[in-house]
Amino acid sequence: MNRVFADLPVTVFEAMSQLARDNNAINLGQGFPDDPGPEDIRRAAADAALNGYNQYPSMMGIPELRQAISTHYAHWHGVTLDPMTEVMVTSGATEALASAILSVVSPGDEVIVFQPVYDSYLPIIRQAGGIPKLVRLEPPHWRVTEEALREVFSPKTKAIVFNNPLNPAAVVYPREDLELLARFCQEFDAVAICDEVWEHVTFDGLSHIPLISIEGMRDRTIKIGSAGKIFSLTGWKVGFVCAAPPLLRVAAKVHQFLAFTTAPNLQVAVAYGLGKSDDYFLQMRKELARSRDRLADGLARIGFPVIRSQGTYFLTVDLAPLGLNETDEAFCKRIVNDYKVAAIPVSAFYEEEPVTSVVRFCFAKKDQTLDTALERLSDAV
Amino acid sequence: MNRVFADLPVTVFEAMSQLARDNNAINLGQGFPDDPGPEDIRRAAADAALNGYNQYPSMMGIPELRQAISTHYAHWHGVTLDPMTEVMVTSGATEALASAILSVVSPGDEVIVFQPVYDSYLPIIRQAGGIPKLVRLEPPHWRVTEEALREVFSPKTKAIVFNNPLNPAAVVYPREDLELLARFCQEFDAVAICDEVWEHVTFDGLSHIPLISIEGMRDRTIKIGSAGKIFSLTGWKVGFVCAAPPLLRVAAKVHQFLAFTTAPNLQVAVAYGLGKSDDYFLQMRKELARSRDRLADGLARIGFPVIRSQGTYFLTVDLAPLGLNETDEAFCKRIVNDYKVAAIPVSAFYEEEPVTSVVRFCFAKKDQTLDTALERLSDAV
Ligand SMILES: CSCCC(=O)C(=O)O
Ligand SMILES: CSCCC(=O)C(=O)O
Repeated sequence: MNRVFADLPVTVFEAMSQLARDNNAINLGQGFPDDPGPEDIRRAAADAALNGYNQYPSMMGIPELRQAISTHYAHWHGVTLDPMTEVMVTSGATEALASAILSVVSPGDEVIVFQPVYDSYLPIIRQAGGIPKLVRLEPPHWRVTEEALREVFSPKTKAIVFNNPLNPAAVVYPREDLELLARFCQEFDAVAICDEVWEHVTFDGLSHIPLISIEGMRDRTIKIGSAGKIFSLTGWKVGFVCAAPPLLRVAAKVHQFLAFTTAPNLQVAVAYGLGKSDDYFLQMRKELARSRDRLADGLARIGFPVIRSQGTYFLTVDLAPLGLNETDEAFCKRIVNDYKVAAIPVSAFYEEEPVTSVVRFCFAKKDQTLDTALERLSDAV
Repeated sequence: MNRVFADLPVTVFEAMSQLARDNNAINLGQGFPDDPGPEDIRRAAADAALNGYNQYPSMMGIPELRQAISTHYAHWHGVTLDPMTEVMVTSGATEALASAILSVVSPGDEVIVFQPVYDSYLPIIRQAGGIPKLVRLEPPHWRVTEEALREVFSPKTKAIVFNNPLNPAAVVYPREDLELLARFCQEFDAVAICDEVWEHVTFDGLSHIPLISIEGMRDRTIKIGSAGKIFSLTGWKVGFVCAAPPLLRVAAKVHQFLAFTTAPNLQVAVAYGLGKSDDYFLQMRKELARSRDRLADGLARIGFPVIRSQGTYFLTVDLAPLGLNETDEAFCKRIVNDYKVAAIPVSAFYEEEPVTSVVRFCFAKKDQTLDTALERLSDAV
């Protein structure tokens, strides 16, 4: 069997969700909301399944969704994308990432990734024959520094894979860090593969800045988005890839043989959703920020040192000051067993030199779910 | 960019569908029906989008669909599969194939494929570092022979990728050929990756025999199926992988990083569909056979030498006896331009030594569509 995959563990998200089910625990691990998602968007999908087209759409995505993605990014970020040559629809952001990485990376190429690293990046980079170069980010600020970049960029650097807002750290990167990355990508002629699935989930007035909008990056950035995250319909698996034609053209060649296309009824519904008013998105952020605060405040009351979340469905707590004498992993195993609450150990996002004192909780849940979880954890510290 | 993909053409199916749109032609190229598909199954998907679960399902597929797949194959083929450890749901058969090939093939492995070859196999084999060994099948029988297998199997053979019923040749392989393949797979310790997406679409009382059911193949076969083809809902992209646990476990590791999971509302609907009575499937075959005959008879009347189709949505015609002095490709370009009917040149399924005189037509269309196409083609010969 192929050794790149044969020895991998099951993804930590699936493993933890399984542990949650086995323990009948509240699942604050894997990132998904426990409400049904926007009713009108689900109705649009239902209508399209009943009355719409259910056969192969164009492998690039239905024209109305490509247009809606283009319009959406022009409106929100001032990024102008030609819907026919610069936008592709994929079967979720995971397939988008795989298509992007496999299109850019050839054997021997170096690819810079940032730890904590989402678990699909490294296996796909290795499958492409790429050599990962790891940058280690650290709590509580997880900032990207010039020194760290100077150490890993080289003439062999082909690409970076960068996640912003950063899961699991819940950081929304400031322009300064993005400009630093942009400078290095240009100096070393590297492509930036940007996993920006959390782009709409930002709090406290912070706005996501797409790397593709930074000067000099328009033609060297592959921007990846996710309708599942934008609309809290994580099971839908409708993703996007946006890039200049020379980059998108090759990503499309990979896509045609990884998944080929994506269910048209879901595409119709996402096209509808992307046209919603600004209010919808601002309201969604406000509600999620309220949930974040509810969980953060509750955890703080119990005695957990909470690291403030700027975006994503997640917040993190730092166990270090608690002097518990156990790793994040042991802690997560203990709380799912003893307190029936599942969370994700952030060390699972490191391949080397893990940060072992930080635990991630998903707050995209109903108040009652969060309250019950807090109650259960009340004497966990 | 990655050379495995950078230089590939757009898939012939997409290219031909585009030509059909550009020419306002009837599209008998890419294989999809022009009716909306079973209403009750589409309603089940609509209901699940409205009232069901829209968040991440298990990455292996929802338990009820895995159970339905297991029950379905036990009923139709006497193949017993443990739903929890031997069945996985994917985002279409394309993703299933990519997951299977990438899980089995490591750099330097030889992989046997049969021409005409579906266009996703070779790029994915090459991405895995595999070395394709091509077996050339020929009209009108397209049979697999011992001599041909003796030439390509070697101690380096890691796997075969076999499509049955065979697209585009419309052959349903008899037990004899499958037993021959099975003997070679066992002699050379090879895994059989079986693309059996057309398993339900067989005619004239012919039954598909899954390779996994042939003696000695149970533990070395990865069986791939497609709800899109079974239910004529090609856009849905719900596929299946069935294999013994040691094989499925690794394919699942690839799947988790290629697509991760598939829309749960479509999974619910497919689970419902697989439980339909035998009558449903027999009726579907009867209707498609009627469409096959309508197109075959009409083409024969015009003067096309039609090769009988045993299964799939396709039939082929042999241009050789017509003495047209043009290749299948030139013929297809000419008829889409001059007669406004799109078809697929079978040479597009060959990497070397193409058969250049055979053209594939899709008959999974309404009577009126077929009749209009026939009218347009009436003086094409
Ligand atoms: C694909 S499962 C993981 C979902 C997610 O983004 C997370 O929980 O971090
Ligand atoms: C994935 S598009 C091709 C569909 C098909 O099976 C065919 O037309 O042969």
